[in-house]
Amino acid sequence: MTAMMTREDVTRFLAEVFPQMGPEFVIDLLARDRAVMRLRVADQHLRPGGTVSGPSMFALADVAAYVATLARIGPKALAVTTHCSIDFMRKPAAGQDLIAEAEVLKLGRALAVISVRLRSEGQLDLVAIASLTYSIPPDKPAA
Amino acid sequence: MTAMMTREDVTRFLAEVFPQMGPEFVIDLLARDRAVMRLRVADQHLRPGGTVSGPSMFALADVAAYVATLARIGPKALAVTTHCSIDFMRKPAAGQDLIAEAEVLKLGRALAVISVRLRSEGQLDLVAIASLTYSIPPDKPAA
Amino acid sequence: MTAMMTREDVTRFLAEVFPQMGPEFVIDLLARDRAVMRLRVADQHLRPGGTVSGPSMFALADVAAYVATLARIGPKALAVTTHCSIDFMRKPAAGQDLIAEAEVLKLGRALAVISVRLRSEGQLDLVAIASLTYSIPPDKPAA
Amino acid sequence: MTAMMTREDVTRFLAEVFPQMGPEFVIDLLARDRAVMRLRVADQHLRPGGTVSGPSMFALADVAAYVATLARIGPKALAVTTHCSIDFMRKPAAGQDLIAEAEVLKLGRALAVISVRLRSEGQLDLVAIASLTYSIPPDKPAA
Repeated sequence: MTAMMTREDVTRFLAEVFPQMGPEFVIDLLARDRAVMRLRVADQHLRPGGTVSGPSMFALADVAAYVATLARIGPKALAVTTHCSIDFMRKPAAGQDLIAEAEVLKLGRALAVISVRLRSEGQLDLVAIASLTYSIPPDKPAA
Repeated sequence: MTAMMTREDVTRFLAEVFPQMGPEFVIDLLARDRAVMRLRVADQHLRPGGTVSGPSMFALADVAAYVATLARIGPKALAVTTHCSIDFMRKPAAGQDLIAEAEVLKLGRALAVISVRLRSEGQLDLVAIASLTYSIPPDKPAA
Repeated sequence: MTAMMTREDVTRFLAEVFPQMGPEFVIDLLARDRAVMRLRVADQHLRPGGTVSGPSMFALADVAAYVATLARIGPKALAVTTHCSIDFMRKPAAGQDLIAEAEVLKLGRALAVISVRLRSEGQLDLVAIASLTYSIPPDKPAA
Repeated sequence: MTAMMTREDVTRFLAEVFPQMGPEFVIDLLARDRAVMRLRVADQHLRPGGTVSGPSMFALADVAAYVATLARIGPKALAVTTHCSIDFMRKPAAGQDLIAEAEVLKLGRALAVISVRLRSEGQLDLVAIASLTYSIPPDKPAA
């Protein structure tokens, strides 16, 4: 079995349905059950002291989980996050992109559970770990 | 016992230490153990369909928890979020500000636990509920 | 609108479908959207030092959330916990029952979200706070 | 750097400080940053239908995280769970032991964060994933 959408498919789909997300979120890699996303860190993502803000890390984890799910279920803009639990463990390195690796742990009919690990580029230690649940809209009978 | 910082104190402190946060986050009310924050919803907070995005809701919950904690411990820019668990339950109402009510459930020497409930203005049903943990830096011996 | 099951209904239903749960879990109060459960603390629930163990607190939060959900949806043994996030904030008081107050925050077609607050009997401070998600089985067409 | 306690050390320590835990929790493997624990499933761990109950899964995740932490910090009975977030994804297989693999993601001065993955023995799919936070008591100055 293979992914239902390629990296190019998903990138185009995101630009259409989430135009606000902007070009700072980049898909580095997309495989069945796994997506690697990069946040090109810029000034608007920083907290005082030069580290990436919590909301920017949350946004990266959320989009990485969404992309990994899309790759499995195909283009469904209506999949929505119903839960996120995130542990912030270390300060992101200043001046480095943030890399999120998302793994689809479960893909049921109604729910997907995705685990996401965040690192600063070039670092081994985790910056944060998150677990997200996506609610998947039922297919319309006649679609 | 009373709060250590007033609404004006905290607003001034946030503008100094988090200049990127911007004027869209407003403290509506500040009391001992409790803060009410408002997100003046604008285009950059929206998802397609006109509802507030997950990262914007996370940002509001996070700052509400931070403000409620500051009111108790005084101005400590270095308090950091170590955990957030958030359930997204309903779509925020289109065209309405988002209101977060934060309650400090525990304030220990090293950790604070804060519960935050999010509603669209004028609505009774919860949009989201979050639980956040803040790590509180130890006081410097000679400060 | 009223609850679909009374306290007696739910107690009888639990004894049937969860005989292992035992008589130490007692429904103190059942109302629409709200249940209060008591754990009659005994030796098997204790950690060294005489406080209630984490698994016992988890079990109480879980059953309180289940009972509050049953009261709304009627007897469905197949509702299952899909997520629990729990913050342990204070040691339970030694020699006191543990009281859980569960509030149904959302009851959708497929998911229920329940917030649970745990206290030692007679204490105001929270021992723990939990948020649980229950997956609700779809009604069978001809049932 | 090596673990501070061997499997035998930790097993002996648990039997001393958690006599209630019982012989059904077994350490299969202990390494630096990693512990594998087994729950020898017996009747008292089951729900109707023959699958392991949520509280039993929570208990296994909790003790696996504790053991993995002990291996790093040495025998501290007072390390306490401050948070657990757990996603239940699949029914455990009937009649199989449950296996938890715990990984210490962060070991700070005050907090440890541990990720735990649960599987039924012999199965690849995850039954549950949990993230736990342990609060580590400060060393006494003169100890």
